[in-house]
Amino acid sequence: MLTIADKTFHSRLLLGSGKFASPQLMQQTIQASGSQLVTLAIKRLELNKPQDDLLTPLRALKIQLLPNTSGAKTAKEAIFAAELSRDALQTNWLKLEIHPDPRYLMPDPIETLAAAEQLVKLGFVVLPYCSADPVLCKRLEQVGCAAVMPLAAAIGSNQGLQTRAMLEIIIEQATVPVIIDAGLGAPSHATAAMELGAAAVLVNTAIAASSDPVAMASAFTQAISAGRIAYKAGLAATQPHALASSPLTDFLAAL
Amino acid sequence: MLTIADKTFHSRLLLGSGKFASPQLMQQTIQASGSQLVTLAIKRLELNKPQDDLLTPLRALKIQLLPNTSGAKTAKEAIFAAELSRDALQTNWLKLEIHPDPRYLMPDPIETLAAAEQLVKLGFVVLPYCSADPVLCKRLEQVGCAAVMPLAAAIGSNQGLQTRAMLEIIIEQATVPVIIDAGLGAPSHATAAMELGAAAVLVNTAIAASSDPVAMASAFTQAISAGRIAYKAGLAATQPHALASSPLTDFLAAL
Amino acid sequence: MLTIADKTFHSRLLLGSGKFASPQLMQQTIQASGSQLVTLAIKRLELNKPQDDLLTPLRALKIQLLPNTSGAKTAKEAIFAAELSRDALQTNWLKLEIHPDPRYLMPDPIETLAAAEQLVKLGFVVLPYCSADPVLCKRLEQVGCAAVMPLAAAIGSNQGLQTRAMLEIIIEQATVPVIIDAGLGAPSHATAAMELGAAAVLVNTAIAASSDPVAMASAFTQAISAGRIAYKAGLAATQPHALASSPLTDFLAAL
Amino acid sequence: MLTIADKTFHSRLLLGSGKFASPQLMQQTIQASGSQLVTLAIKRLELNKPQDDLLTPLRALKIQLLPNTSGAKTAKEAIFAAELSRDALQTNWLKLEIHPDPRYLMPDPIETLAAAEQLVKLGFVVLPYCSADPVLCKRLEQVGCAAVMPLAAAIGSNQGLQTRAMLEIIIEQATVPVIIDAGLGAPSHATAAMELGAAAVLVNTAIAASSDPVAMASAFTQAISAGRIAYKAGLAATQPHALASSPLTDFLAAL
Repeated sequence: MLTIADKTFHSRLLLGSGKFASPQLMQQTIQASGSQLVTLAIKRLELNKPQDDLLTPLRALKIQLLPNTSGAKTAKEAIFAAELSRDALQTNWLKLEIHPDPRYLMPDPIETLAAAEQLVKLGFVVLPYCSADPVLCKRLEQVGCAAVMPLAAAIGSNQGLQTRAMLEIIIEQATVPVIIDAGLGAPSHATAAMELGAAAVLVNTAIAASSDPVAMASAFTQAISAGRIAYKAGLAATQPHALASSPLTDFLAAL
Repeated sequence: MLTIADKTFHSRLLLGSGKFASPQLMQQTIQASGSQLVTLAIKRLELNKPQDDLLTPLRALKIQLLPNTSGAKTAKEAIFAAELSRDALQTNWLKLEIHPDPRYLMPDPIETLAAAEQLVKLGFVVLPYCSADPVLCKRLEQVGCAAVMPLAAAIGSNQGLQTRAMLEIIIEQATVPVIIDAGLGAPSHATAAMELGAAAVLVNTAIAASSDPVAMASAFTQAISAGRIAYKAGLAATQPHALASSPLTDFLAAL
Repeated sequence: MLTIADKTFHSRLLLGSGKFASPQLMQQTIQASGSQLVTLAIKRLELNKPQDDLLTPLRALKIQLLPNTSGAKTAKEAIFAAELSRDALQTNWLKLEIHPDPRYLMPDPIETLAAAEQLVKLGFVVLPYCSADPVLCKRLEQVGCAAVMPLAAAIGSNQGLQTRAMLEIIIEQATVPVIIDAGLGAPSHATAAMELGAAAVLVNTAIAASSDPVAMASAFTQAISAGRIAYKAGLAATQPHALASSPLTDFLAAL
Repeated sequence: MLTIADKTFHSRLLLGSGKFASPQLMQQTIQASGSQLVTLAIKRLELNKPQDDLLTPLRALKIQLLPNTSGAKTAKEAIFAAELSRDALQTNWLKLEIHPDPRYLMPDPIETLAAAEQLVKLGFVVLPYCSADPVLCKRLEQVGCAAVMPLAAAIGSNQGLQTRAMLEIIIEQATVPVIIDAGLGAPSHATAAMELGAAAVLVNTAIAASSDPVAMASAFTQAISAGRIAYKAGLAATQPHALASSPLTDFLAAL
């Protein structure tokens, strides 16, 4: 069970709701994945007509909505969007995203920390998207974030655990759940993230932009479960030399 | 479904039977994994008392036994062991292993090809353990091997897909199943192998020497399934730049 | 030529002065390397007796001293150390290091940016050690830092370019020199860093703790030159398939 | 000094002569590189008019010519080409290449070993291009090859040390020089190969197809020297944690 703030979840897969070919496909995919935490961009909502095309199918799923501030370039913009979203969606859960750079969508550590501190005080359950920076993650935790969401690689790049050495340190030092976000492009990346001890992973592009999102979601779900089990059982260390699976004997000589 | 020679299998996990703490644990692990193809070293069998400690629990599982010639240093030794094993175990399936080097247990390409050719003529279903050498794999296929089993890394090293670039070529060119053997130490390695298009993987040390073989077997089973689904659905290409999951708009500016 | 602030340097290797077996060995190594920028910990100086064991041999080399604030845990501590150092060493160049974490010595992005902004206003030439965070590097540049020094891996870990994907983005976006700092453990790491387009690299442990620091310094110097030349000439793209070095013909058939 | 058979060389860079824009550029590049061993495809020679465009500039350089059998698909073809080449070029040195596969130019282990054994008996100094297969390399050595030339990656792919784990074993076990061949696309790859303990590297595409072959050759030469020095001095082990370059003290607290 994954516990974030005061809620528990069976699933360790967070899904993004962007890039799906249709709301129906999004809905089917979320169901197939078993995901219980789905993020959606506040800017995609028509906040004054909340029964919009995106929101209605999400509401039907009885999941925890995780509105995100994607598109915000400053703490001020993010906080403004967060307040609007809380009123409209009736949830204080928030994925905080502040990325001033349009090319790589890299998060801004300074604005993110400032906004996180503020939003926690305003009563939000804050899950910040952030660079794979161990001290930053520790500070986000210290201002009261419910989890940290360091990036594996650039959003949508499918490059996998490019920041692995930093993620290992972050996981070792964290006392809140570490959710690996951004850049996971294949189930093997998700398995590896879970083997490192991540509490969960967020996937969007690799599933939504797949030729078969429903199948790919199920692949990620199994991959995450596999990695989690392996983490709990403990992976063996790598060995510099071979270790015979079958103990060598004088069998043939003895014949 | 995995088809090798004239048999089909639901499971794409081949298990080794070495290194388990007890025959009971081996039996439970095989059951938990769903594996239908289990390899065992001919030299570990007391061939004239076939109801030995290892064989009885294996027989009870209704799996395809895959006796291996581990310990053989030449084609001649391997063929001799194969003949003994066919008589004793009543199966013509054979995992061919010839590794003269005791330190890294690296397979010998020359003796392996020579033995494979001979054993096929003698009526065996031959699955050879071999180096990740594309031309060698093609030749093994041409002499009639039912599958090829190139190594990912040294046996028991847990290092994962160290020969990845060669495995990709082997898989692209093969017309028989490619089963990745040796060196897979974590479920993420198995997922990645399947994502490349491997037909199956063989695991022994990483499961048998785990603190919880039953759990680890189940992790590998899920990992393999995840990788297989992803391979069939098609993985997205990696991107040099970020691609926004949430389409950027002038949402905030418009408020 | 490497230009930082208003100075130019022939060498693109910055050396650390810690961990050498003796001041003599340090001096010989710096000379062998051709390095013109050498960092030293302010805390290692006896500031009121500036002719100390470390400083005298450094002064004799006619290099640019780059005092560092290693050991500082806050912006305030770093600024205090910087002011002391400027008085004692008669240089306004400063390598800014703020790492509250004693285990991995990871830099603090918030305190580092705050200190950098302050120190620039106080007239320092500031070269900050920082995480491989593209937005942070851009911000450090914007407050007036003369260069940025993102980490490749944890200090002294010798792990090489663990943050490679982030370093590529940083280099692409920077308008000040990017100096790769921390974790470079082998000349091949330095070559690779320069091939990415880094302006320079800083090495300490891998040279000072080597069995032969003078030889290893010369290896790094050549490695850096090799990488720089390759960067300027332009590396070829990797190819998925083979490209014959020797055009294939019907030569043999024609004989 | 690199010793192969009964000759010694200052340079540890073997160059290919294919793909250069002109013979003049080839000649200048070889000179700039200091290479003393240059390979050329026998099939490119007009063997009955040996003063051809390629050969004349090579002869002028006083290097050891290393004719190669590129294009040969069988041992028989390779031996035939070798005999022709020995007569025409007056050297018994030979780079043995047998690759039946036109797409990846992967070497054939069986034909290569058979041809090598034969050619040694015929008085050739044989340097075989081969897969990164530790047992094959040992066998090539045992039949009398003067060196082994395992591949790093597919010819012309520029992918670097894709077979690194196997190369490490090959180098550990070899008693003849190990020359890493094929796939080295950047000076950092060459440095890394030398750090592993390779005796030399062969480069063609990455230099000849560069926008500035003379500069790139010089980069590789320095890269190789750097890696060799580091290998001899001994690289430090990687560390899981940070090791402070500057010993931490209570300096600031004491002020």
